[in-house]
Amino acid sequence: MNNDAKKAVLRMIPYGIYVLTADDGKGNIAAATVNWVTQSAFAPPLVVMGVKADSGTYKIVKAAQVFALNMLGKEQKNLAFTFFRPADVSEGKISGQPFRKGQTGAPILIDAPGAVECRVTAVVEQGDHHIVVGEVVEAHLQKPITGRPDAAILEMKDLGDNVFYGG
Amino acid sequence: MNNDAKKAVLRMIPYGIYVLTADDGKGNIAAATVNWVTQSAFAPPLVVMGVKADSGTYKIVKAAQVFALNMLGKEQKNLAFTFFRPADVSEGKISGQPFRKGQTGAPILIDAPGAVECRVTAVVEQGDHHIVVGEVVEAHLQKPITGRPDAAILEMKDLGDNVFYGG
Repeated sequence: MNNDAKKAVLRMIPYGIYVLTADDGKGNIAAATVNWVTQSAFAPPLVVMGVKADSGTYKIVKAAQVFALNMLGKEQKNLAFTFFRPADVSEGKISGQPFRKGQTGAPILIDAPGAVECRVTAVVEQGDHHIVVGEVVEAHLQKPITGRPDAAILEMKDLGDNVFYGG
Repeated sequence: MNNDAKKAVLRMIPYGIYVLTADDGKGNIAAATVNWVTQSAFAPPLVVMGVKADSGTYKIVKAAQVFALNMLGKEQKNLAFTFFRPADVSEGKISGQPFRKGQTGAPILIDAPGAVECRVTAVVEQGDHHIVVGEVVEAHLQKPITGRPDAAILEMKDLGDNVFYGG
């Protein structure tokens, strides 16, 4: 396989930017920027994400069996970079960001325009990132969207000319 | 759950447009426009897609155990709509589009700027679309890309103001 071709072609896949959150109920709260996300079914509504298998976030998601994907808005580039770093929970905030507990217990970032809460329905333990499948059980539209919803989300290409996570 | 919120928030996920192809070696060739695609791991390189469980395409992918994702270019909106319809193979073309057999036997659309060939490594049979995981075993960059690769791909939002497949 031509590795340059593989990298370039896989980098054609466009990505939104999300903060994946979870709370294992034992004092461990995860909040990490992710981008490998897709819906995979309408009924029931399923989403799939790739999560770094050796990360604390993955451990907490697996323990919690529920998680939230907080969609970042076009102007929230700073939040993407905030949650590239390990999350720090103090004074009722995650890395300085206000949140509330969702219906599943997963943290919902109050400033994110939208979020879905999911129950883990399957995990595929393949690769350096594992595949987590979640059924959407709750959704929060926290700011009204004008125009197409997929034009309102922060995208990988908005983070910088040379910022990629894929390939 | 608020269904309007669920639909709007899930529609924030941005999607590229791909023609999923497969050949079962028994005379059945699939070629269908899909968009629920993400990478899920770097090592090995894995991609995940949601494929309609009652479709002929899904049947052929499962039988073949290999498939190709042909990335459409920004100007190939017509091809997206061509492959929304059932594929028709005649005179060495699929629905009028020239192709060649890839290393895995999956059809590679000659006019697509890029394609990856994958070997199925897992299927998660959940939902009205099932989750197919594929390891990328070959990649084809058929046209040089200038700028970001994720700016060169045709996106769902390019297909029309009210064209969605998600929510």
